[in-house]
Amino acid sequence: MPRLFYGALVTPTSRKEYLALPHSLLCVSDAGQIAWVANNVLPSDLQNELARHGLSDDPNLDLVELKTGEFLMPGFIDTHTHAPQMPNVGSGQQYELLDWLQEVTFPMEARFSDPGFARTTYETVVRRSIDCGTTTCCYYGTVHLEATKLLADIVHSRGQRAFVGKCNMNRESPTYYIEPSTEESISATRSLIEHIRSLPASCPPDSPPLVQPVLTPRFAISCTSDLLSSLGDLARSDPTLTIQTHISENASEIAYTKVLFPPESLPPLPPSAGEASRKARDTYAGVYDAYGLLRHNTILAHGVHLEDVEIEVIKAQGAGVSHCPTSNFNLSSGCAKVGALLDKGIKVGLGTDVSGGFSPSILRTVQDASICSKVVAMSAPSKPDDSDGFTNRQLPVATLLHLATLGGAEVCGLGSRVGQLAPGRAFDALVVSIRTDVGNPAVWSADLDARLDVAASGGELGYEGGRGQTETEELEGMLERFLFCGDDRNVRRVYVQGRLVGGKEYTM
Amino acid sequence: MPRLFYGALVTPTSRKEYLALPHSLLCVSDAGQIAWVANNVLPSDLQNELARHGLSDDPNLDLVELKTGEFLMPGFIDTHTHAPQMPNVGSGQQYELLDWLQEVTFPMEARFSDPGFARTTYETVVRRSIDCGTTTCCYYGTVHLEATKLLADIVHSRGQRAFVGKCNMNRESPTYYIEPSTEESISATRSLIEHIRSLPASCPPDSPPLVQPVLTPRFAISCTSDLLSSLGDLARSDPTLTIQTHISENASEIAYTKVLFPPESLPPLPPSAGEASRKARDTYAGVYDAYGLLRHNTILAHGVHLEDVEIEVIKAQGAGVSHCPTSNFNLSSGCAKVGALLDKGIKVGLGTDVSGGFSPSILRTVQDASICSKVVAMSAPSKPDDSDGFTNRQLPVATLLHLATLGGAEVCGLGSRVGQLAPGRAFDALVVSIRTDVGNPAVWSADLDARLDVAASGGELGYEGGRGQTETEELEGMLERFLFCGDDRNVRRVYVQGRLVGGKEYTM
Repeated sequence: MPRLFYGALVTPTSRKEYLALPHSLLCVSDAGQIAWVANNVLPSDLQNELARHGLSDDPNLDLVELKTGEFLMPGFIDTHTHAPQMPNVGSGQQYELLDWLQEVTFPMEARFSDPGFARTTYETVVRRSIDCGTTTCCYYGTVHLEATKLLADIVHSRGQRAFVGKCNMNRESPTYYIEPSTEESISATRSLIEHIRSLPASCPPDSPPLVQPVLTPRFAISCTSDLLSSLGDLARSDPTLTIQTHISENASEIAYTKVLFPPESLPPLPPSAGEASRKARDTYAGVYDAYGLLRHNTILAHGVHLEDVEIEVIKAQGAGVSHCPTSNFNLSSGCAKVGALLDKGIKVGLGTDVSGGFSPSILRTVQDASICSKVVAMSAPSKPDDSDGFTNRQLPVATLLHLATLGGAEVCGLGSRVGQLAPGRAFDALVVSIRTDVGNPAVWSADLDARLDVAASGGELGYEGGRGQTETEELEGMLERFLFCGDDRNVRRVYVQGRLVGGKEYTM
Repeated sequence: MPRLFYGALVTPTSRKEYLALPHSLLCVSDAGQIAWVANNVLPSDLQNELARHGLSDDPNLDLVELKTGEFLMPGFIDTHTHAPQMPNVGSGQQYELLDWLQEVTFPMEARFSDPGFARTTYETVVRRSIDCGTTTCCYYGTVHLEATKLLADIVHSRGQRAFVGKCNMNRESPTYYIEPSTEESISATRSLIEHIRSLPASCPPDSPPLVQPVLTPRFAISCTSDLLSSLGDLARSDPTLTIQTHISENASEIAYTKVLFPPESLPPLPPSAGEASRKARDTYAGVYDAYGLLRHNTILAHGVHLEDVEIEVIKAQGAGVSHCPTSNFNLSSGCAKVGALLDKGIKVGLGTDVSGGFSPSILRTVQDASICSKVVAMSAPSKPDDSDGFTNRQLPVATLLHLATLGGAEVCGLGSRVGQLAPGRAFDALVVSIRTDVGNPAVWSADLDARLDVAASGGELGYEGGRGQTETEELEGMLERFLFCGDDRNVRRVYVQGRLVGGKEYTM
């Protein structure tokens, strides 16, 4: 029995445009796929439209009618976060990256050697992520195999779409938090992959499973050449395996990476290697590239200080960047030049990077991505001549929405499956409400209340366009207010693959 | 009958330090003043401490015991916000200042010619401000006398401490939203002052009333020389009258101000004028100074691009700056150099600047003040030699707390009355909770939950220091998590002058 949603709908169509459709009827199949979407279905046309699809006569019709002030949109994609760091969220903002790892992060991550602590913590981490509207999440775990298996189990049972990885780190790490050898690191990684791939299927037969493993060399600094080499072999043996790591977050990190991996220490490039790979040998990106870890399904977190030759090799290999502006501000890492990356055609999504970032919500990341782009634009000597470009310009709402949804999906290799509300895609979606009755005082909706009052007192609840706006413009305004002022209270329902998995109206 | 609060307490002591006291007993007098504070009162000492104050035998003792995870702190001071712009919050972030005024702000403010609209809107604006934890608020109204009287009435009846001003603007404003003459602008301003000063007293006899009028020339651009001159006369006739205006927010605004007010057009300085005034004649600050509007009780919003001579004259006249980082980011205005202002000894507080800023909460402003200081530090060529200074350094938590409370109080001329929880000050305070049960998933408190679980299952609820922290360090951590991750759900009770006026546990 298909499920139908009737009401306002917002969905990105490109990096520069999105659709705001006040009257949509969307049909979700039993398998959780979007079967079809009909637009401009006015209330008076609803029965006719249902009839056109042979659905009007069923008394058990599963039709969700959105209220005034509610809209459907694709779920958020968090392309970079650290599940075990959530207990530190909002702590340690006085540090920059390398000190912060030593003082704040590693001591907390070490606690996940205790599976009991891991289970309790990860249960609430995953719950919070979903309730913030994140339908797909790329999780770093710790170095611990058991704890990371538990994370995958919890994500699987909660129904979130996710990539779960165990950190590889066998050097430049504290003695209490390090893997003893390359062999053990690789062996545990293989065990995790096998564990995740043996979880019961939760998707239609022709779709990838909701929970997938991801190779997770923490960052170049924490891996010996030997480990990177073995991870590269593992990656080559399985082209479908997603890879995530950090890149070019902080000046000290970049400098130390170059000390540890001088070009002459890297494996030779194969004869088939392209010009971009050759030029990037003495860069941070060049290290990952040399070990075969930079490819179409690599997720690179940060990319704050990328050199031009690095951007070229990332583009050439088809890797994507997870932009984490809240973290980059919080750890004084810098402002990533996202506009320039977009103009180069690099795939870009957003990451909360908890606890470098101090919020588990992609909404905060959206706001800080806007601010970051404005800081970059203010600091730039001049705007580019190309008025259509993103370089050194503030990101408009359409682009912010894209980064938070479809852009993130592209970075995760799910660009054809989620991130848009369109036929043939999985129904990974949010029901958002900006109504006053959800209780978030930061979102203004008194204009809406005035209309609802009219209706409540017997008047007709028509569209009045209080600010002289069209219905489409009003919906665009609702989206902007949600993105800039919203929080988890505005996320009423969270669906993944058609299944209700979270949000304020969800009870387990 | 005095009221007592027993539990954790946080209060700023200077720009660089604050007290985090896990076991305090604070006594509020009937007049809403803090009578005394006793520290280090362990639970086993509580009855003895009460006895020492002759309070132990009273069965009707009004004692509020804070729970684990709760603490008292001074209420927030919002030194700059626009009440009529709240309906636009989260809109129009694509504009810079002057276009934003024309496209977004003025059309909304014009609607407040309708007293019915004003009343409905201001009721919820004031409610939201209080519930965000703002105990003192500096409000801009519109040009409309009636609407601004209503704003003052509502603030007065809701019990918030506030400054309420009617905008003066008689030029460079849209034909539909402008005052017809200097005379009518001044006359309406006098009427508002009289109205506010005739509101019933709500404070102890020797204290200033909770609601005070404030002269509000919108900004130099919107006032003729004649109007600024008359406002200066009004100010001179009443040295207690607070003044608020905008300064140096945006490059175009600064340039246009200089075009409108060349030095030769300004009134001559009196012979008593100091060196700083003479040097600042051709600056934005010099305009206000020339008209007698720059003095010890002037609140200058923004100050993003202040020249050195402007900082000198602001310092010399004793005026204060309202730092509005969320707005400055959102309207691409720039990053105010707050550290340099602090090092110069300028009074600095925080302002939400709704709707230039997209949040009514000072918490968001605190977070963005931190980010702004980090952006300034990252952009600075070098740190100053003086390791004790703020210039070009990130602001620590102690300073952020100060800006949000005591610093704001100083800017408003209330530096000896509110902003600190100390004897002799008004009890303008918040009960904050970072407990999971308040429902904010962005604040982590699972360590706390684990301890509460131990207690619930019959174990002893002792202090365990889960992260190897002292109780004081743990309380400092709670403050940091509240400031960076908190929202209105964490603001349980809001007191002004001892009266419960808002917060999640308040019902009208």
